[in-house]
Amino acid sequence: MTSGSDPNRPMILGGPTVILVEPQLGENIGAVARAMLNCGLTDLRLVRPRDGWPNPRAVASAAGADQVLDQAQLFPNVDYAVADLQRVYATTARNRGMTQHIFNPRAAAAEMREQWNAGLKIGLLFGPERTGLINDQLSLADALIAVPLNPAFASLNLAQAVLLICYEWFVTTPEAPPERLLRTGQSQPATKADLLNLFEHLERELDACRFFSTPDKRPSMVRNIRNAFERMSLTEQEVRTFHGIVAGLAGRRKGNGA
Amino acid sequence: MTSGSDPNRPMILGGPTVILVEPQLGENIGAVARAMLNCGLTDLRLVRPRDGWPNPRAVASAAGADQVLDQAQLFPNVDYAVADLQRVYATTARNRGMTQHIFNPRAAAAEMREQWNAGLKIGLLFGPERTGLINDQLSLADALIAVPLNPAFASLNLAQAVLLICYEWFVTTPEAPPERLLRTGQSQPATKADLLNLFEHLERELDACRFFSTPDKRPSMVRNIRNAFERMSLTEQEVRTFHGIVAGLAGRRKGNGA
Repeated sequence: MTSGSDPNRPMILGGPTVILVEPQLGENIGAVARAMLNCGLTDLRLVRPRDGWPNPRAVASAAGADQVLDQAQLFPNVDYAVADLQRVYATTARNRGMTQHIFNPRAAAAEMREQWNAGLKIGLLFGPERTGLINDQLSLADALIAVPLNPAFASLNLAQAVLLICYEWFVTTPEAPPERLLRTGQSQPATKADLLNLFEHLERELDACRFFSTPDKRPSMVRNIRNAFERMSLTEQEVRTFHGIVAGLAGRRKGNGA
Repeated sequence: MTSGSDPNRPMILGGPTVILVEPQLGENIGAVARAMLNCGLTDLRLVRPRDGWPNPRAVASAAGADQVLDQAQLFPNVDYAVADLQRVYATTARNRGMTQHIFNPRAAAAEMREQWNAGLKIGLLFGPERTGLINDQLSLADALIAVPLNPAFASLNLAQAVLLICYEWFVTTPEAPPERLLRTGQSQPATKADLLNLFEHLERELDACRFFSTPDKRPSMVRNIRNAFERMSLTEQEVRTFHGIVAGLAGRRKGNGA
């Protein structure tokens, strides 16, 4: 997918701290930074990254999310990395048989947003690529997050897990775009008067070419045609285009048939 | 994140067709297959993949989602690839100035689920890695999907875009796990009688050691302690553990103080 980045548009920033525990591959750390900044998160903490820090491979895979890597903090263990946080969510793919609250990313995002609005410092804990967090680390968390996936094939890499959870966080930002809208380019949505005008133009020409074979069927046929046009949510410009289409077709028929 | 795959658990399958238009890297095609199967999607179509098909690099990055690659169909152009579909959603990161409905992945998933339940064949159209879909291809779609991201840094790779949209689809499956639950391991959640019994045991011992310095403060202190325990959502096993803790602490004190 093409990048939709625009450095002239406002950076939407702020959100939980992401803590990677013993990440193995620099590429994955960079991909995590990229996933985070996509969703406005910038605070990254690393606990004992296997290949040391800084790591040029992380920069290569961050795709420009350098500010996240530059500010990343290094910690010798998880206890220190979560010390100043007030709520911690740990991610896990497995049922470890422990008693903990478990959220899907959406429910976790809703709860984190409330905590964020109340001024709490929140952390998201991710384990090493292959093994995940160990039970003692899960026990540091207020609750767990598990991504709902096909139970017979649940296989996310580290950055994808970070992305899905951070995406759910971003959706809760007040600045996130609406769920659905009609994008209308340069033109405004047509008014009902514009539309009625078009309908009457079309129906006048349809009468003229004897499109309505039986008069008693005309009202229902008119309604069906109007319904189809209503579903188009036409713009002002498109209404003008359809006026032209009707006039053009009718003119051709008249010209040819004269 | 660790794989949570379990081949003994039921495969949840079914959903929209994913159509990749002129994908460049085999690695990305494999990563798309992996993202799809995570979310139960298996129908993949490829329009003129740059490096031909089949592609061993796709297999390497599919992480076991071979069934998606094995069934993938090849098409010479987008028109043929969408010919049998009844609803098509095209993904885009840019505002192209055309008039089209645009959904975020969540709203699109809700609409697709309704269409799926009504028996419609649905497709998701993704463009080439660098350029995305061209306007003529977007015009084949009933509506567009745009992932809401940080406007100043919106940078998803192809498989991540597929994953986010397919994830939202999967969340709408009836089989998806609940948004939140208390995972209790082997033990059942405690009953209120279990809890009251624990509270009374604790308060009896607190009375014995003169924990409540002033009698008039006892009721509110008891309520506060009970509230803290209620927030724990204890299991039966944990209630037994706390009985042991209270008995153990009190016994030690009695022994020492005798």
